[in-house]
Amino acid sequence: MKAVVFDEKLKVVPGVEIPKPKKDEALIRVLISGICNTDYEITKGYMGYKGIIGHEFIGIVEDVNCQDKYWIGKRVAGEINNGCGICEWCRKGLERHCPDRETLGIWKKDGCMAEYVTIPIKNLIEIPENVATEEAVFIEPLAAALEILEQLHIKPFEKVAVLGDGKLGLITALALNASGLDVVLIGKHENKLDIAKEQNVKTLLLKDVNVQKYFDVVVEATGSITGFETSISLVKPRGVLVLKSTIAASKEFNFAPIVVDEITVLGSRCGQFKPALRYMEQKKINFKPLISGVFSIDDALIAFKRNADKDSVKILIKTENEK
Amino acid sequence: MKAVVFDEKLKVVPGVEIPKPKKDEALIRVLISGICNTDYEITKGYMGYKGIIGHEFIGIVEDVNCQDKYWIGKRVAGEINNGCGICEWCRKGLERHCPDRETLGIWKKDGCMAEYVTIPIKNLIEIPENVATEEAVFIEPLAAALEILEQLHIKPFEKVAVLGDGKLGLITALALNASGLDVVLIGKHENKLDIAKEQNVKTLLLKDVNVQKYFDVVVEATGSITGFETSISLVKPRGVLVLKSTIAASKEFNFAPIVVDEITVLGSRCGQFKPALRYMEQKKINFKPLISGVFSIDDALIAFKRNADKDSVKILIKTENEK
Repeated sequence: MKAVVFDEKLKVVPGVEIPKPKKDEALIRVLISGICNTDYEITKGYMGYKGIIGHEFIGIVEDVNCQDKYWIGKRVAGEINNGCGICEWCRKGLERHCPDRETLGIWKKDGCMAEYVTIPIKNLIEIPENVATEEAVFIEPLAAALEILEQLHIKPFEKVAVLGDGKLGLITALALNASGLDVVLIGKHENKLDIAKEQNVKTLLLKDVNVQKYFDVVVEATGSITGFETSISLVKPRGVLVLKSTIAASKEFNFAPIVVDEITVLGSRCGQFKPALRYMEQKKINFKPLISGVFSIDDALIAFKRNADKDSVKILIKTENEK
Repeated sequence: MKAVVFDEKLKVVPGVEIPKPKKDEALIRVLISGICNTDYEITKGYMGYKGIIGHEFIGIVEDVNCQDKYWIGKRVAGEINNGCGICEWCRKGLERHCPDRETLGIWKKDGCMAEYVTIPIKNLIEIPENVATEEAVFIEPLAAALEILEQLHIKPFEKVAVLGDGKLGLITALALNASGLDVVLIGKHENKLDIAKEQNVKTLLLKDVNVQKYFDVVVEATGSITGFETSISLVKPRGVLVLKSTIAASKEFNFAPIVVDEITVLGSRCGQFKPALRYMEQKKINFKPLISGVFSIDDALIAFKRNADKDSVKILIKTENEK
């Protein structure tokens, strides 16, 4: 099969062996996959990952390595973290924090940017008919956005700002707005802000922001250290700064405002797929305007280049070449 | 009067005018004051503060600028933050976050390392007879330690580590231990750890720490960026890292573990005096072993030098020279 592999550099490899599902795993024929900024970071060395890249996908179950054949033929997504199933984290339903976890296309497990992928059956979630494949592929980033609501009780009267109008910021702002919260998306790109604005999210160009210590909750989704500093300046004393993107300070960074204003910095990563699917079934968010391009797997390198363009939001890769 | 003044450099100034209490302020004859690391940081330029230094004190009320003369002659401490009294923060009892606040010896208000100081009467708290002056002067740092319990619900079964065996770390470990929590104090100095150990706090030399991602709550009290990194390595996924000391990263600093492990970083500053006083009245903590030296105000510069010694904990300055 064809697969997009990162091994020192990113390449499309044509002759990769189709994986065999281990016990209680499913073999999935991938229909579509999405490029996440984490994929981009992996190509820069993040997590030291080598192998088939990609963790956002929708596919059709081709085979299962178990007695029950229910899943065969179903259109599915798959939770990306696979825990040991027995540790304190797994027992609490937090497989995504299992110290022995595998994470699809990120850590110890080949990813989905290929014609086939294997996934533990327990991680599968069925996509209902009324959700198109190109929408459904947003389930993983939407789950990550909704993770904020699993971690934090945001009250209806509280003011929320999402900083950064990339795919992460846009999906987060759309998700929090769809949850009834009072959200402003702040970014640098009018065309991207407009995607949220058309779905009734309040938006603001960064250069027009004239408040400080104003928001109860600020979601940092720029991935830059200057964005983090701006987030700190925007959050109220005793407010919460949700850190959604993995950033590194490459310059002097002062933590004193966090202490003086008693700010809570809340790291936030992957979320559960079920609530995300409910949002999709109820058409709470229109994902179509976020798609900046759909490429064939043969053109994956071009797709990654397009992903890096300032004006692009979500890039999808179609992998339904066989059958 | 004599006063310890920071103005580009630290000096003892002999002829400072005794301050006049404004309306609803008290004039206090200072008995004793304590050196906090914030004072030391101010002498390095923190907050750009210039004026009489010091915010930890016990004194006798000499005069009040109001009708009610109740307070005259009382032995008191004073809350260090003075808010506007009318903003949303002040109305919530959070004067210490009022945007227009003055903070004693730190921001816009002359401090207490002098023979006299003025304080709003509403900020006074009476020290009961069974609490000695040299114990009572720990009320401000103890309140700051107990602030953690105002901000965070720590459960009885949760594991807490305090990192750093300076005065802040010691007082925090003693306070959390006195609150019935399961606390380990981790530091580099056996003699300082022993102060906590003698009061039944579990202690551990940093070089003997052989766990990672182990504690539900880690309090960072080293004030160093390497201490912050160690704290991150010690806290469990979804755990809380309480940031007690104002630190600055002077080198590359990676925020990714905070996101990946969904850690909460909780900035924590000043606390309320009343609960601290209750701990003191009930003799929950013995502060005497924390006193490394008592100096006269004339020797304040020597006292600051002694404060900077690696083996010193709390340095006090006696100011009861008059009367």
